[in-house]
Amino acid sequence: MSILRDDVLAELEAQAIELPSWAFGNSGTRFKVFGTAGTPRDPYEKIADAAQVNRYTALAPTVALHIPWDKVPDYADLRRHAESLGVKLGTINSNTFQEDAYKFGSLTHEDPKVRRQAIDHHLECIDIMDETGSRDLKIWLADGSNYPGQADIRGRQDRLHESLQEIYARLGDEQRLVLEYKFFEPAFYHTDVPDWGTSYAQTAALGEKAMVCLDTGHHAPGTNIEFIVMQLLRLGKLGSFDFNSRFYADDDLIVGAADPYQLFRIVFEVIRGGGLNNPDVAFMLDQCHNVEDKIPGQIRSVLNVQEMTARALLVDHEALRAAQLSHDVLEANRVFMDAFQTDVRPALAEWRESRGLPADPMRAYLDSGYFERIADERVGGVQASWGA
Amino acid sequence: MSILRDDVLAELEAQAIELPSWAFGNSGTRFKVFGTAGTPRDPYEKIADAAQVNRYTALAPTVALHIPWDKVPDYADLRRHAESLGVKLGTINSNTFQEDAYKFGSLTHEDPKVRRQAIDHHLECIDIMDETGSRDLKIWLADGSNYPGQADIRGRQDRLHESLQEIYARLGDEQRLVLEYKFFEPAFYHTDVPDWGTSYAQTAALGEKAMVCLDTGHHAPGTNIEFIVMQLLRLGKLGSFDFNSRFYADDDLIVGAADPYQLFRIVFEVIRGGGLNNPDVAFMLDQCHNVEDKIPGQIRSVLNVQEMTARALLVDHEALRAAQLSHDVLEANRVFMDAFQTDVRPALAEWRESRGLPADPMRAYLDSGYFERIADERVGGVQASWGA
Amino acid sequence: MSILRDDVLAELEAQAIELPSWAFGNSGTRFKVFGTAGTPRDPYEKIADAAQVNRYTALAPTVALHIPWDKVPDYADLRRHAESLGVKLGTINSNTFQEDAYKFGSLTHEDPKVRRQAIDHHLECIDIMDETGSRDLKIWLADGSNYPGQADIRGRQDRLHESLQEIYARLGDEQRLVLEYKFFEPAFYHTDVPDWGTSYAQTAALGEKAMVCLDTGHHAPGTNIEFIVMQLLRLGKLGSFDFNSRFYADDDLIVGAADPYQLFRIVFEVIRGGGLNNPDVAFMLDQCHNVEDKIPGQIRSVLNVQEMTARALLVDHEALRAAQLSHDVLEANRVFMDAFQTDVRPALAEWRESRGLPADPMRAYLDSGYFERIADERVGGVQASWGA
Amino acid sequence: MSILRDDVLAELEAQAIELPSWAFGNSGTRFKVFGTAGTPRDPYEKIADAAQVNRYTALAPTVALHIPWDKVPDYADLRRHAESLGVKLGTINSNTFQEDAYKFGSLTHEDPKVRRQAIDHHLECIDIMDETGSRDLKIWLADGSNYPGQADIRGRQDRLHESLQEIYARLGDEQRLVLEYKFFEPAFYHTDVPDWGTSYAQTAALGEKAMVCLDTGHHAPGTNIEFIVMQLLRLGKLGSFDFNSRFYADDDLIVGAADPYQLFRIVFEVIRGGGLNNPDVAFMLDQCHNVEDKIPGQIRSVLNVQEMTARALLVDHEALRAAQLSHDVLEANRVFMDAFQTDVRPALAEWRESRGLPADPMRAYLDSGYFERIADERVGGVQASWGA
Repeated sequence: MSILRDDVLAELEAQAIELPSWAFGNSGTRFKVFGTAGTPRDPYEKIADAAQVNRYTALAPTVALHIPWDKVPDYADLRRHAESLGVKLGTINSNTFQEDAYKFGSLTHEDPKVRRQAIDHHLECIDIMDETGSRDLKIWLADGSNYPGQADIRGRQDRLHESLQEIYARLGDEQRLVLEYKFFEPAFYHTDVPDWGTSYAQTAALGEKAMVCLDTGHHAPGTNIEFIVMQLLRLGKLGSFDFNSRFYADDDLIVGAADPYQLFRIVFEVIRGGGLNNPDVAFMLDQCHNVEDKIPGQIRSVLNVQEMTARALLVDHEALRAAQLSHDVLEANRVFMDAFQTDVRPALAEWRESRGLPADPMRAYLDSGYFERIADERVGGVQASWGA
Repeated sequence: MSILRDDVLAELEAQAIELPSWAFGNSGTRFKVFGTAGTPRDPYEKIADAAQVNRYTALAPTVALHIPWDKVPDYADLRRHAESLGVKLGTINSNTFQEDAYKFGSLTHEDPKVRRQAIDHHLECIDIMDETGSRDLKIWLADGSNYPGQADIRGRQDRLHESLQEIYARLGDEQRLVLEYKFFEPAFYHTDVPDWGTSYAQTAALGEKAMVCLDTGHHAPGTNIEFIVMQLLRLGKLGSFDFNSRFYADDDLIVGAADPYQLFRIVFEVIRGGGLNNPDVAFMLDQCHNVEDKIPGQIRSVLNVQEMTARALLVDHEALRAAQLSHDVLEANRVFMDAFQTDVRPALAEWRESRGLPADPMRAYLDSGYFERIADERVGGVQASWGA
Repeated sequence: MSILRDDVLAELEAQAIELPSWAFGNSGTRFKVFGTAGTPRDPYEKIADAAQVNRYTALAPTVALHIPWDKVPDYADLRRHAESLGVKLGTINSNTFQEDAYKFGSLTHEDPKVRRQAIDHHLECIDIMDETGSRDLKIWLADGSNYPGQADIRGRQDRLHESLQEIYARLGDEQRLVLEYKFFEPAFYHTDVPDWGTSYAQTAALGEKAMVCLDTGHHAPGTNIEFIVMQLLRLGKLGSFDFNSRFYADDDLIVGAADPYQLFRIVFEVIRGGGLNNPDVAFMLDQCHNVEDKIPGQIRSVLNVQEMTARALLVDHEALRAAQLSHDVLEANRVFMDAFQTDVRPALAEWRESRGLPADPMRAYLDSGYFERIADERVGGVQASWGA
Repeated sequence: MSILRDDVLAELEAQAIELPSWAFGNSGTRFKVFGTAGTPRDPYEKIADAAQVNRYTALAPTVALHIPWDKVPDYADLRRHAESLGVKLGTINSNTFQEDAYKFGSLTHEDPKVRRQAIDHHLECIDIMDETGSRDLKIWLADGSNYPGQADIRGRQDRLHESLQEIYARLGDEQRLVLEYKFFEPAFYHTDVPDWGTSYAQTAALGEKAMVCLDTGHHAPGTNIEFIVMQLLRLGKLGSFDFNSRFYADDDLIVGAADPYQLFRIVFEVIRGGGLNNPDVAFMLDQCHNVEDKIPGQIRSVLNVQEMTARALLVDHEALRAAQLSHDVLEANRVFMDAFQTDVRPALAEWRESRGLPADPMRAYLDSGYFERIADERVGGVQASWGA
C-alpha cells in the first residue's frame, strides 16, 4: 500500500501551479544574459513550452502572461492556442519598469502624467484579462529610490494608494488585484512596497478584491516566511505565491533548490491555514533559469512543489498536536521532521503511472525529442527575454 | 547668529526622551553580566540616577518602570520621590519572560492557566499605572519557539488576540497599550510578534488606544527602518520608539552609536510625518550599557538624539522638494546630507548655556562627583539587573 | 539488501562525534535560563549523562571539558569515571570570558597582567590535557569591543599573536591548539577573531599544530559554510567542527534542525576533501538545549549527523562528475539531491540492530528510566550552567 | 586658522583616487539600463569625462580601463589623449564574464580550452598594461555556480591557483596582480573567490606581487569591513580598494552615501595601518550611477572620500589612546566620533581656493557648460555600457 493515503492523493490531484511565460525566455544578471538554443521568440512558443511541463506532470494547467512582453494582436487566438495545447491563460502581470518614463517611479511618480501612463497600462492589462479570461492582475512595482533624500517616501505612499484605487475600481466582479512586495532591487535605498505589512495595508485600504502576493525570494535575510504565510492566511489576504528560492538576494532559483525544508514549512502552514487547493490562494512560479535549461527547470520546479506538498500532507497532526500540548519539544519536532524526511518519490511515481502519466516526468520530457526539435526549428528571430 | 533658528530651538526645547529604569542596573550577555560600582539596588536609586541625566540635559523628564523589577510597596511614594528629583514616572513595561511558567509562552500559551497568569500580570501593571499616573503600558513578548513543529503558530496568534483584548478592555480612557515587535531572541525559530505588520494587525484589531512600539534594534539585517516609521505614522499607529543601535542583532548599543546617519533619517521621517513633539509618539530609550558607564551612557544617548533632531530640523525643505520634483538625485541627496553634515554641537552648547544648562552636560556630570558618591555609598545589597 | 553499501557502513561505523559537557547543564539567553529536573551538579554527573548518549548510539565516545566549569581535584579519577562508563575525556575548552578581569579582553588585553592571567589559564588547561590525555586545546575568545574607537583593533591582533605563541610553545608533541572564530557576540562592534580568514592567518603564523575550529553557527547571514569547509581542508587547516544550527545569530540549536540540506552539503564537502574519519578533523557538538531536554537533545544531534553522513555517502560520484563535466546543471543537482532525499532511517535502524544497538536510540533512552532516576536523585546542590 | 593642520593638508594634497572608465557609461540592473544624454561612445570620451572630475577636484589623476570595453587600436594614442587632459591611465581590469564561453567559469572552468582563453585574455591585458604604463592588473571573477552539486568547488579552487600562477608569471617587475573577492552575484550558490580569506590564501600562494582588492560592497550583511582593512594591512596584502556603498547587496552606490560613518571608520583604519598615501594601497572607485548623473556622481564620490579622510585625520590620537588604555569606553568613542562630527567642508573649500581650485567643485562643474556641450555633441553612435 502506498504511503500516500487517498485523502493525500486527492489533494495532490487537485494541485495546480501556474507557470510564468517569461521563465521560458532568456534571463540573467546585470552582467550577462546567456542565450540558449530553442528559446521561444514569441508568446505562442512560450505557451507551447509551458504546455510541455503540464503534459508530463499534469501540475501546470495555466500560464501567466507579462504585458507588454506577451502582447499579441489577438488574445482570443492566443487563448485558443493555449487551450489546444491543454493549458489556459492565467494571471496577467503588469510591467512599469522598462519604459524610460518610469525611471523615477510609476504608480508613485511625482508627475501625474507618468502616473496616468502607469495607471492606463494597468487598465489595458485588465482589458486583456477580459479577453484572456484571467482572474488576477498581479502588480509588482520597481518603484523606489537609490539615495536618501531623493524621494518623498511618504508622498509616494499616498500616491500609490490613489493610483491603486483607480485600477481597483476597474476590476470586474470576478477579478482580483494582487500586490507583490519586495525587499529591494532594482531600487537600492527605499522600495515603495518593501514588505508584507505595506502590501497588506495598501490592499486592505482597497477592498476585498485586493490581495497580497508573497514571492518567496523577496524578504530580508533570516525572515521566517512561513510565519507571514500563516499571518496573511489568518487575515484573509494571501492572494498568491510567487515560488522560487534563494541563497542571498532575489536569486530566483528553482523553488526548493536552496532550502527544501523551508519549502516544506511553508506548504505546511498553507495546509494548516486552509490555503491548499483553495481558489483564493494561487500557486505560481516566478523563477529565472539563468544557467540551466528552461523547460526542465520548470518541470523540476513543479515536481519540487508536489513532493513537498506530499511530505507536508504526511505530517501526523494528532501526534504533533499531542506533543505540542505537552510541550515535548523534541517529539513535536520529530513528528514534523519525520514527514519531511520521508521519501515520497517512489509512491508519487507509482501514482503518476496509475493516472497515465510518466513515472519520471523529467526523463519522459528529455526522451521526447522536444528540445532537439525546437532547437532546430527556432532559428532566426529574436529570442524572448526581459527586454522583449 | 546661531545656525539653529528659533523654530528649531522651539522644537528642541519641547523634546522629551523617556529613560528606562533598567538601563541603570547591570546588563550583559548570556556569557557574562559585569557588575559596576555604584549600581542601584532598588527603584529609588534607579530614579535618582535617571534624574541626573535630566538635571544636566533637560531632555529626560520621565522614567519608565519595569514590573516586577521596579515593584515597590508604595507607588505614590515612588512618584513623590521622582517628582522631588524633577522627573515623573512614565511607561509601565510588563515582563512575562522570567517566570518559569512562561517557558513556552505567556499571552499565547496553550495552557489557559498560564495565559491567565500573564493577563493578570498586565492587569496588575494597569493598576500600577493608575497609581503612577502612567499613560502607556508597553508589551514586549518573548513568546515564540525554537524548533519547527514545536508550536502551532497560527493558534498562538489567535490566542494573542484574545489575551490582548482582555488587557485592552481594562485600559482607562487616557491610557494606551503599545505592542512592541522583535525579529528574534530569545526565541530562535519563530517569534509571535516578529515584525511591524503583525504588531499593526494585532493593534488595529484592538482599537484606537492600541499602538505599535518600534524598537530600532528589532529588525532583520538591511531593513529600512525610516520607511516603517513613515508607514506607521501614515497609518496613525506609531505609539512609541525604543531607541538604541546595533551592528548585528539586538545589540542594544547607545542610540546613534552604530549608524548616526540612520538615526538622522529616522528623525527626518518623524518630522516629515508630524511625529516630533506629538504626544501620540513617545521617544524612549531601551539600551544595555554592558561595558560602558550607565549614567554617562544615558547622557550620551539623549544628546545623540537631540543632536540628530537638530540636524534633521536643519534640512532645507524647499530646496529638497525642488530637487525631488525635478528628479535631481544628486542635488536632493546633497541638500539632505548637508543638514546631516552640519556640526550643530557648538550652537547647541551655546543654547544650553542660555537656558541655564551646562554647555557640556557630560563634562558637568563627570565633574559633579555624583558617581564617586554613589560608588562609595551603594555598598552591600544586591545590584539591580534583569534578574531582579 | 540495504541501501547502505559496506563501504558506507564502514565509514559510519568509524564515525565519532564529541559531546560538550556543558550541553548537559542549563543554558539560556540573557533573558532567562530555565532550570530542569535532573540537571547535573558536577562534571561526574555530566559525564554520566554524556555516556548515555554513547550507550544508545555508539556515536559519541568522547566528552569535551570546559575549564573552569569542569575543574575537579583529580583528573585521573574523572578519567577513570569516564572510562568506566565507556567514554573518554576529549578536547579541553578554555574560558576567558567570565572573570571580571576579562571585561575588556583576555589574550588581546592592553594590560600585560591580564594577558598573563589569560595565558596562564591556557597553560593550566594544557596541564589538565596532560592529565586527561586530551589532544586538543580549543580556544574561543569573547575578546572584542562594543563601540568604534573603544579599542585599537590592530594592536589587539598583534597581541593575540604574541599570546598564542606562548601557549603554542607549551603544547606537547601530540597536542594541538584549535582557534575558533565567531562573527559577533558577546562583542557587538568588533570581535578579535571574527572570521575564518583571521583564524587561518593566526594559526598559520603559529605552526602545524595550530588549526582552525569551524562552528557552524558563527557566520554572517548567507555565508556559504561548505565553501569554507572546502577551503580549510584544502589549506590543511580544518582542525575541528563545532556543530549546531541557527536561523538568526548564534542560536546554538540542534545540528541539522534549522537547515538539514546545509548540513548535508557540509558533510559532502568534508567527504570530498578527505575530512571524514580523518583524525585531523574532529567532529564536535556545541549546542544549547534551552527549551528541550538535554540528553535526548544530544541523542537527536548525533543521529542527525549520522543520518546526513549516510545520505552524503550515497551521492553517486560518477554520475555527479559526469553531469558536472557536461555542464548539465539540472542533472548534477538531481544526482546531488537524490542522495539528500533518500530516507536512510530504516536502513540505519536495521544496521544498528545488527550491531547490538537499539534500532531507535531515542526510544530506547526514553524507555530506560534514566531520566526519571536522575530527576529523583539529583536533588539539592547547584545545577550546572555557564556560571559554574 | 583652519581646523585642518598642515600635516593633515599634506596628506590631503597627496591623496589620489582612481576613477573607473565604466562609471561614465550607462549601467543599471537586470530590469533596465536607462540611457542618458551625453553618455560617452568610446574610451576617448570616457577619459574626457573622467578628466573633468580631476579638473575640478585635483583628486582623480588616473583612470582605470576595462578590457575589452576599453579596447582601442592604439594605446599609446589613448595615453597621449589622457595626458593631454591631465590624467593618466591606471589599473587594467580584465573581463571574463561576458563571453558565452564563460557561462560555467573562466579561470576555474573544467575545460582547459576555456581556461586557456581566460588566461590568454589576462596575458593580453598585461600586454596592454605594458603599453599604457599601468601597474595593476585587477581580476574580478564572476566564476561560481547556482545550484549545489553543479560544480566541484574544490577542483575549481585548485584550477584557479594554476591559472593565476600562469598569469602571475607574466607580470613585469613593477607590475602587480590584485584579486578581488565578492560575496555573491552573478553566481547565486557558490562564488569561487567569495571572501577576503580566499583572496588572501590565493594571492599568498602566488607571491609578493599578488595582492587583495577590497570592494566595500562585496561583503555579507553586518561584516565589519574596517576589521578586514586592518587585517589585510597587517598581513601586507591590501593592494587596492574599490570604493562604493550599499544598503543591501552589491548596490554600487556612491561611496559614503549609504553609511558615511562606516567610510570614516575604514579610512581611520587605513591611516592607522599606514595605508594612506602608501603606493602599495590604491584607492579606486567602482560604482554604478544608475539613476544619477555620472560625472557629478563621480565628483561627489571623490569629495566624499576626501571629506572623510580629512575627518579621520582629525582624530586626536593621543586622547584616543589615553582613553583606550584606561578603558574609558565612552570617552574613547567620544574622541573618535568628535572627528567624525566635525564639519570639515568650510575648511576644505578654503584650502581648495588657496590651491587655485574651485571652493565648490560640483558647482563649478555644473556651471561649466560641459554637460550641455556633450549632450549636444554626442549624438549618434552607441552609448557605452557594460555590454560594449
